[in-house]
Amino acid sequence: MENPPQLVRDIGELGLLAKLQDFCPKDIVGDDGATIAIAPHHLLVTTTDVLVDGVHFSDRTTAPEDVGWRAAAANLSDLAAMGASPLGITVGLSLPGDVSVTWVERMYRGLTLCLQNWHTPIIGGDICRSSIITLAITALGQVLPDRVIRRYAARAGDGIVVTGVHGASRAGLELLLSPNLGTVLSEEDRAYLISAHQRPQPRLDVLTYLKNIERLAGMDSSDGLADAVLQICRCSGMGARLNRDAIAILPAISQLVSPQKALEWILYGGEDFELVLTLPYQEAEVLVAQLGRGSAIVGSIVEGKEVVLVDRQDPCFSQVLSLTAGFQHF
Amino acid sequence: MENPPQLVRDIGELGLLAKLQDFCPKDIVGDDGATIAIAPHHLLVTTTDVLVDGVHFSDRTTAPEDVGWRAAAANLSDLAAMGASPLGITVGLSLPGDVSVTWVERMYRGLTLCLQNWHTPIIGGDICRSSIITLAITALGQVLPDRVIRRYAARAGDGIVVTGVHGASRAGLELLLSPNLGTVLSEEDRAYLISAHQRPQPRLDVLTYLKNIERLAGMDSSDGLADAVLQICRCSGMGARLNRDAIAILPAISQLVSPQKALEWILYGGEDFELVLTLPYQEAEVLVAQLGRGSAIVGSIVEGKEVVLVDRQDPCFSQVLSLTAGFQHF
Repeated sequence: MENPPQLVRDIGELGLLAKLQDFCPKDIVGDDGATIAIAPHHLLVTTTDVLVDGVHFSDRTTAPEDVGWRAAAANLSDLAAMGASPLGITVGLSLPGDVSVTWVERMYRGLTLCLQNWHTPIIGGDICRSSIITLAITALGQVLPDRVIRRYAARAGDGIVVTGVHGASRAGLELLLSPNLGTVLSEEDRAYLISAHQRPQPRLDVLTYLKNIERLAGMDSSDGLADAVLQICRCSGMGARLNRDAIAILPAISQLVSPQKALEWILYGGEDFELVLTLPYQEAEVLVAQLGRGSAIVGSIVEGKEVVLVDRQDPCFSQVLSLTAGFQHF
Repeated sequence: MENPPQLVRDIGELGLLAKLQDFCPKDIVGDDGATIAIAPHHLLVTTTDVLVDGVHFSDRTTAPEDVGWRAAAANLSDLAAMGASPLGITVGLSLPGDVSVTWVERMYRGLTLCLQNWHTPIIGGDICRSSIITLAITALGQVLPDRVIRRYAARAGDGIVVTGVHGASRAGLELLLSPNLGTVLSEEDRAYLISAHQRPQPRLDVLTYLKNIERLAGMDSSDGLADAVLQICRCSGMGARLNRDAIAILPAISQLVSPQKALEWILYGGEDFELVLTLPYQEAEVLVAQLGRGSAIVGSIVEGKEVVLVDRQDPCFSQVLSLTAGFQHF
């Protein structure tokens, strides 16, 4: 007979802390706080995300490694959206005593797997008993003051660049929730969409290409492409025209659902963790050429306040986008 | 008839975020991340604390302002224990939709009340739906590299300094849980002990007096005086003798409970948020004279591994202290 899994309450707080310290650099943790050096002349950037069992993840769709990976990716994506290189993350974990120790270790393995790609350490945290698993992450990064990407810097005439296609994360989630849905897809397409949901890639790699761009606004598309454009416009006091015909729909998604539903996933699905950037049109064209695969100019910033979805192949089509159509907690 | 209180779910995520942004500096929040400057040559210090409803606070003993105050104080205390000046905190809040908006605003008011004393802003965070109120705070501070206070730097012969008396927070908690207990006390003493529990003061003020001390180890006494001495000794590979006769018992506590129980509260009660520092004996004497009220040398660091409680007035008394006697989650 198999042994029952070891539970968090079996090893207690000190036992769990000892195991989790293996995931942190020895020279950084073990005191009241962690100390890290910042490069000269850089600003510190911080961002916080809270993930709750049953809201942001569930056993049905998310292995513990994926919970960790996604949490790390979401925070690194916020740093990328600020133009910042990651320095480290802190992890505030609360959980019931009957969670298995293996679950916690696997979740931490997922965190570190994602962080390793960007040489980012876990620099501390706290664990605590609770009735529900909750993961609060604060990511720290650094950026030169003139390289910070703000939401409020968009100007009329800017091109709106997406660094990759949208909708795949939401499609992957639907496949996990309704496995029968995916029977029309090749195994490769199915795996791709599910991986987009379980192992999203923060676009820190994009920062290399932004070094010489004079003026830039942007954020990440964690809450969907529509939300990103709307937030940038609201903060900049601008409007936008989004060209439906320029927004790519992945062939795998076209096989799954109607164009209308696909567009809904792209605009409001969220969690694709691409960057949405606005910059002078000619520079936008250069950037898209450099980024390649999936990157595109999907519209432009205009005077006014409205974000309107249009279609250059269908002059009758016009739809005003709004924030309230997206996801809200509570 | 009174109107029913407005609930978090009534105003939704965006409504709540808008209210909470009033507690943050306008120029810092509102983007994917916050940016702050660090003074040249300083190290960044981070520390994280998670507080859960029913574990760290409850409506019986803690008003929402006090939940916020205590959360801020605990994190500022960790920065003080590292020798660091605070830069800001991030707040990850998860809560049920049926919490009143007033509760959340009062909690944030408590946070800012405590932070204001140290000119420390809330520099961002996240809110999320959950079945239980959970507050995850990461505090950021800065310190010159040669001013960091580490746990591992204690040496034989050092005096062990406490920056104030211990046990008051635990006594205040007991008074809140069993109001009848306090009938023997004057109103002033009762209020003092309860305030020690509800509004603890982080000892950032102590840092001023540490500037010229060559070598120093230390941590805060958030988990009790015994825990602090034990951790410092473990990290430093040292032992300690604690003099029971040098450990002050507040007169108000003596009125409440036996000397044995009072000592238990002092050693293991926790949440007094004083600093426990070890430094060369002569410098310890100077420091205690500077700090005044409540500060004392309570023992010394010795070779070996054991932390022994002795009494210079009672040669027969000797007790080995251990970590496991303290509080553990799970």
